[in-house]
Amino acid sequence: MMQGYHFHKVNPRVVFDMFFRRQPFGGGYAVLAGIEPLIDALETLRFEPRDLDYLRSTGLFRDDFLDELVHLRFGGDVYALPEGSVVFANEPLLRVHADLIEAQLIESLLLNIVNFQTLIATKAARIYLATGEGTLLEFGLRRAHGPDGALSASRAAYIGGAAATSNTLAGQRLGIPVSGTMAHSWIMAFADELEAFRRYAEVFPDSCILLIDTYDTLGSGIRNAIVVGRELKDGGHKGFGVRLDSGDLVPLSREVRRCLNSAGLSDARIAVSNDLDEGSIGSLRAAGAPIDLWGVGTNLVTAGGDPALSGVYKLVARSQGSGYQPVMKRSDDPAKTSDPGIKQLYRIYDGQGRPRADYIALEEESPPKGGGLEAFDPVDEKPRMLKTLVPPSPMLRQVMSSGKRYGQREPLPETRDRTLTSLRALPEEVRRLDDPVRYPVLVSATLRQTRELLLRSVPGGDGHGRPSA
Amino acid sequence: MMQGYHFHKVNPRVVFDMFFRRQPFGGGYAVLAGIEPLIDALETLRFEPRDLDYLRSTGLFRDDFLDELVHLRFGGDVYALPEGSVVFANEPLLRVHADLIEAQLIESLLLNIVNFQTLIATKAARIYLATGEGTLLEFGLRRAHGPDGALSASRAAYIGGAAATSNTLAGQRLGIPVSGTMAHSWIMAFADELEAFRRYAEVFPDSCILLIDTYDTLGSGIRNAIVVGRELKDGGHKGFGVRLDSGDLVPLSREVRRCLNSAGLSDARIAVSNDLDEGSIGSLRAAGAPIDLWGVGTNLVTAGGDPALSGVYKLVARSQGSGYQPVMKRSDDPAKTSDPGIKQLYRIYDGQGRPRADYIALEEESPPKGGGLEAFDPVDEKPRMLKTLVPPSPMLRQVMSSGKRYGQREPLPETRDRTLTSLRALPEEVRRLDDPVRYPVLVSATLRQTRELLLRSVPGGDGHGRPSA
Repeated sequence: MMQGYHFHKVNPRVVFDMFFRRQPFGGGYAVLAGIEPLIDALETLRFEPRDLDYLRSTGLFRDDFLDELVHLRFGGDVYALPEGSVVFANEPLLRVHADLIEAQLIESLLLNIVNFQTLIATKAARIYLATGEGTLLEFGLRRAHGPDGALSASRAAYIGGAAATSNTLAGQRLGIPVSGTMAHSWIMAFADELEAFRRYAEVFPDSCILLIDTYDTLGSGIRNAIVVGRELKDGGHKGFGVRLDSGDLVPLSREVRRCLNSAGLSDARIAVSNDLDEGSIGSLRAAGAPIDLWGVGTNLVTAGGDPALSGVYKLVARSQGSGYQPVMKRSDDPAKTSDPGIKQLYRIYDGQGRPRADYIALEEESPPKGGGLEAFDPVDEKPRMLKTLVPPSPMLRQVMSSGKRYGQREPLPETRDRTLTSLRALPEEVRRLDDPVRYPVLVSATLRQTRELLLRSVPGGDGHGRPSA
Repeated sequence: MMQGYHFHKVNPRVVFDMFFRRQPFGGGYAVLAGIEPLIDALETLRFEPRDLDYLRSTGLFRDDFLDELVHLRFGGDVYALPEGSVVFANEPLLRVHADLIEAQLIESLLLNIVNFQTLIATKAARIYLATGEGTLLEFGLRRAHGPDGALSASRAAYIGGAAATSNTLAGQRLGIPVSGTMAHSWIMAFADELEAFRRYAEVFPDSCILLIDTYDTLGSGIRNAIVVGRELKDGGHKGFGVRLDSGDLVPLSREVRRCLNSAGLSDARIAVSNDLDEGSIGSLRAAGAPIDLWGVGTNLVTAGGDPALSGVYKLVARSQGSGYQPVMKRSDDPAKTSDPGIKQLYRIYDGQGRPRADYIALEEESPPKGGGLEAFDPVDEKPRMLKTLVPPSPMLRQVMSSGKRYGQREPLPETRDRTLTSLRALPEEVRRLDDPVRYPVLVSATLRQTRELLLRSVPGGDGHGRPSA
C-alpha cells in the first residue's frame, strides 16, 4: 500500500484512531497499556540497508520507492490516553496525525504492541481484583508467546496489578520487582525432602517459600516444612511460607494453615499456583481458602479465555484545504462502522470522584463546561443528560510531536499506582466479573450529526462506491 | 535454585525430558516446532557484564555465584524429535543431558520457545487441513502477542502449512514467502472505489486482490472489481482476485463467484478473511463456499481456543557412579506423575507407511526388532502386541553435543514439506477435528516395570519424603 501511495503521489495528511469494539473477557472495562513502548518504537523506526536489500530481493518493490524508504522516519503527532487508563469499547485510545504513507506504515506495529499489552494489563487487573488486591506474582515465562511475549506480558501484568515477576530479564529491562521460587526438581535433587528444604533455607533464610507437594502434601510435605520453618523462626528469620501447586486447594490450604498455626507459625504465608485465573481465585476466596500469595502464569500471560484484543486502526479524517474532512468506513455490518472525525474524550465523574460516563466530542467543538451536558448513547440512540460539577479535562493528550516524544516518561511504578487507583474508583457493577453493567460511552450531538450525515452520503447515491465529496 | 545448587556444590549430571500432557485444541495430534530456534538460543546463551550488574543490584545473589556466571555456557547434549514432527501427549519430545545447574537454567527458555511454536504449528496444521490443503495466508501481526510473538508465530505457522505471511520481517529473517493485501483505508484514500481499485491494479497488475466490502460488497464492490479485472485480463495480466472481509461468506462468495464467472473472469480467485479458524473454515467448505485463498490472523497466531501448550520439563535421571539412576516425581495427582529414566521413542508404521502407534522404551534396552513387540498402554494398563515389518528407527536424535549444534540445519521449506507429508500420513480418525481417536502411545515392559518400582518406593515407607535410595 505504501508503494501504491508513493507511485500515485497520494500522501495527504490524515488522522487515524485506534479503538476496540468489544470488551475483552466479557468484562466491563479494559486497562490501556503499551503506549510508552510504542513511542520508543516509533521514535527509532527506520529501514536499515539490510532491510532494503531484503525488500529489493523480493522483486515486489520499485527502486524509486525503496530509495524513499532510506530516509523515511515517523514524523507524525500522536495523542493518547495515559498508560494504564481504564478504558472502554468504541472510544478513541490513540490518535495519529501523519502523512498517509507514515500513518499506514505504523498500523501493524501500533496494533501489535497496544493490543497485546492492553489485553494483558486488563487480564492482570481482573486477576488482581479477584485476589482482593492481594499479592499477585506473575510466573508466566514458560507458557508465554515467545521471549518478547513474556517480556511485554510482565510489563503489562505489573501495570495491571502484579506485584512481581519471575522473569529476571523483565526485572533488568523494565525495573519490575522479581520474585523466585523453587521447583519440584530442587526437591528431587537432594536425598530427601527435609534435606532439600533445609538446604534451600540456608541460601534464602529470609524469603523461604517451600514447595510441599512433591511427595505428599499433608504427610511429609507440611511436616518437613514446619521443621524448617521453626528452625528459621528460632534463628530470627522472617518471610517463611509454603507453596501448594496441585490438588484441591480449599481443603489443602485450610489444613496447612491449621498445621502451621498449631506449630506456632501463624505468620507463615501460604502461596498457591496451579493454573489459576480470576474465576478460580474468586471461587477459592469465596470458599474461605486462607491464601496469602497468588502465583499466576499461563492464564495471565496468554490472556486465557480471550487471547486477542480486537483493537483496530481506522482512518477518521483527511486533510482538505487548511483543515480536515471527516471520513468513515461504512460496513454491511453496522458494528464495524467507525466514528468519523478528529475526536476528544472526556470522563465525567460524580461528586465522589467515581467515573459515571465517558463523552466523545469532535475536537473542534468547544470543550464541555461544568453543569448539564446533552449526549447520545450510540447503542440505544437515546439522548442523555450528563451532570458534571467541574469542566472535565480532555483525556487524549499529545505524546509525540513531529515524531519525537512529547512530555516526560513516567516511571512504571507511578503508572501502576495510578492504574490501581483508577480501578478502585470504578463502580462495582462495572468492575465485577460476571455480567457487568455496560459503562456509558456517549457521543456529542455534533459528532452524532456528523456520523448521520456521512452514513447517508456513503457509499453515495450512484451505488458505485463513491464516498461523500 | 542455581545459586542454591552452587552454594551446596550440588551439580550432578542429570537428564530432563520435555513433554506435554494434554493434546492442544482437543485434537488428536500436535506438530513439534521451535527446535532450531532453541538450538540457536542455547549456543549463544551467556551472562553479559550488564546482566551481572543487574543481578548484583537485586541484592539476592552472592559474589562467588555471580563470578561463576561470567563463565557459564550451556555445555550439554540435546536430543530431539525432528522439527515439524507429528507428536502426541506424554512422549518425550526433547531430552537434555547436562550438569544440573545448566539444565535448570535453560528450563524456562526451552519451554517458552518450544511450547509456543509447537502450539502455533499445531494450530496451523489444523487450519491447513481444514482448508483441504488450500492456500493459507498468515495475517496475524496486529493481534500477535508482541513483535516476537508475531515473528515466532509466522515461522511456526509456515511449518504447519501456511503458504505465506504478511509479516515482511519474518520474510527477511526466516525466508518465509510474504504476501500482502490492501486495507479498507486504501479504498478510502481515493475519491471513489473504482479509482482506488484501478490505482492498485496499476501498481500490482499481476497480484491484484481487491477488497470489495468497503461500501457495498454485492453492489459497487463486485461491479467495480469486475471492471478492473477485465481491464487486467485484456492487458494479459494474471493473478486477479477479490477479497471478502465481512458478512455471511457462504452466500456472498457464491454470488461473487457467479458474477465473476458471468463476466468471463472464471480464473479470478476469491480470498476471505474474517476471524476465521479451523471450525469456520470447515463449515464454509461443507456449505460449498467457492473460496480459493484463506487469510487467517488472530486465531492462528494467538492459538484461538487454547492459548498455551502444557509442555513441561522434568528431571528423569541423575548420574550415579558411571551410570544414571532413573528419577520420577510422584504427585498426589496421577496425571502429573512423569515417566522415569532415559528414554527413546520409536514410531511403528503399517504396511502403507501410516503410523499406528508410538513406542517408548528405555535407551538402555536393545532397540526393537521387526516382528511382534509387547507394549503397554499407560492409560488402560493393558498389554498390546505391536507388529512391525521393519525395525523402527529411534526418533530422538542428537541435535547438540557439548553445547554445540550437532548436525546440519535444515532449510525451513524442507521442514515444512516433511511436516505436511507426515500430516497426510496420519490416520483420518486421529486427524479429524471433532472427537478424534486417541493415537496409541505405548511403553515397553521394562519402562513400565521401572515406573512401578519407583511408584512403590517414592516417597518411601518412612513418610518423610525420602525417595528411593
